[in-house]
Amino acid sequence: MELLSKIGRYDFLAEPFHCDFANRLFMGHLGNHLLNAADFHSNDRGYGMHYLNPNHKTWVLSRLAIEMSEMPKAYDRFTVDTWIDGAMRYFTSRNFAIRGQNGKVYGYGRSIWAMIDTDSRQPTDILAIHDGLIMSYVDTEKPCPIEKSSRVKMDSGAEFMRTIDTYYSDVDVNGHINSVKYIEHILDLFDIDFYGQHHLKRFEIAYVAESHQGDQLNFYRQMTGESEYCVRITKGIKNTDNEAEVVRSKMIFVKD
Amino acid sequence: MELLSKIGRYDFLAEPFHCDFANRLFMGHLGNHLLNAADFHSNDRGYGMHYLNPNHKTWVLSRLAIEMSEMPKAYDRFTVDTWIDGAMRYFTSRNFAIRGQNGKVYGYGRSIWAMIDTDSRQPTDILAIHDGLIMSYVDTEKPCPIEKSSRVKMDSGAEFMRTIDTYYSDVDVNGHINSVKYIEHILDLFDIDFYGQHHLKRFEIAYVAESHQGDQLNFYRQMTGESEYCVRITKGIKNTDNEAEVVRSKMIFVKD
Repeated sequence: MELLSKIGRYDFLAEPFHCDFANRLFMGHLGNHLLNAADFHSNDRGYGMHYLNPNHKTWVLSRLAIEMSEMPKAYDRFTVDTWIDGAMRYFTSRNFAIRGQNGKVYGYGRSIWAMIDTDSRQPTDILAIHDGLIMSYVDTEKPCPIEKSSRVKMDSGAEFMRTIDTYYSDVDVNGHINSVKYIEHILDLFDIDFYGQHHLKRFEIAYVAESHQGDQLNFYRQMTGESEYCVRITKGIKNTDNEAEVVRSKMIFVKD
Repeated sequence: MELLSKIGRYDFLAEPFHCDFANRLFMGHLGNHLLNAADFHSNDRGYGMHYLNPNHKTWVLSRLAIEMSEMPKAYDRFTVDTWIDGAMRYFTSRNFAIRGQNGKVYGYGRSIWAMIDTDSRQPTDILAIHDGLIMSYVDTEKPCPIEKSSRVKMDSGAEFMRTIDTYYSDVDVNGHINSVKYIEHILDLFDIDFYGQHHLKRFEIAYVAESHQGDQLNFYRQMTGESEYCVRITKGIKNTDNEAEVVRSKMIFVKD
């Protein structure tokens, strides 16, 4: 099998109906573009969903961090470069660079992925796929000048914000709440007046456990710095009063 | 100005994260692709948002009907043909044909658009744009073999389903609840078990009035035939107990 380039580049358009009231691409839709780029890149190289799914395996996104110096505006064309910068038995890290025309840099992303067996739902050995083929694609030289995901620290000071029901549109092909929908629900904790005075510079999310259609999701938010917020999402555990953590997230806004 | 072809053709991909639990493209995302095709087609021909917005005018979607013999599945590539099949002073009708590879026909769409003045929010004369340029693009010959939108008839038998809050992600660049988000919210009135036994053949929506972030939307649903449902969305009117109608919709499902 002939090797492709380590870095894949994919073209996207900031679609007008994917932009917010201020004409900026929604972070959730940008996240979706990054996930698409990851998907195309891994499929093209033989260890993507097209190969994994018939073999009862799938990639699972564990963490995603996106940091933007600027958001694409409606109709802007941009590219997403993506590459693997590290692979181990149970985790790989994948980076993203988001660029506009004439060398403009919008921002970068970092992500961590696991691979699971879809029958047992247990982690499975990434390096067993095509005799560790993924190692041939690791690029440790291309820079990704944003910090790795941090541990999102929240304490009992987190404020309960709301409980939402989950519906048909929230669910992806695996039957779980869609990774991108969590991003939307988190960013919906801030209202339009807030977004009129701030823009989102950095967004981090860690996927801790799965949730399903019909689960009620509880949102807790804590201000952890100047324009910095952390959010915890929990789901109820059936027939108990307990909650299980599903997602943690951290946002850094900049006041305009 | 040289005339382009009357029919525009645009390429799309059924992105994996835009597909439902059964791997079918969500109707809301398909609707978004049709709106994009309309937008590209009208921009390319000189009467799109790029020309209108600086001139304080905008297109407003009034009705949309989509009828599918089959939905694209994840990773399917499809094209959307779009053309104007009628233009009058205050309304145009625009059709869509959704096709796959090797001549496969997925389905068709019909839509009605008005143009408004963004300062006064009043209808404005479509034929005044570039001396009625749009008339040069009317194609009445290309077939669109689905019925026009019907009047959605609902009576007092409609059942109140739920009230939802609207948030930042619901709002488009005009500050209104996004046309596509209404589609999602309506289809969320049916749960995954229902979609496991039915597929959506025809979806119609009429946009009656605008709503904004923070508005509470009330959903009423009535079964109007075998696997046929109508939905009315209202918003509360401030400082009263009254509700104003925002959207009407009709769905025809087919039992699998």
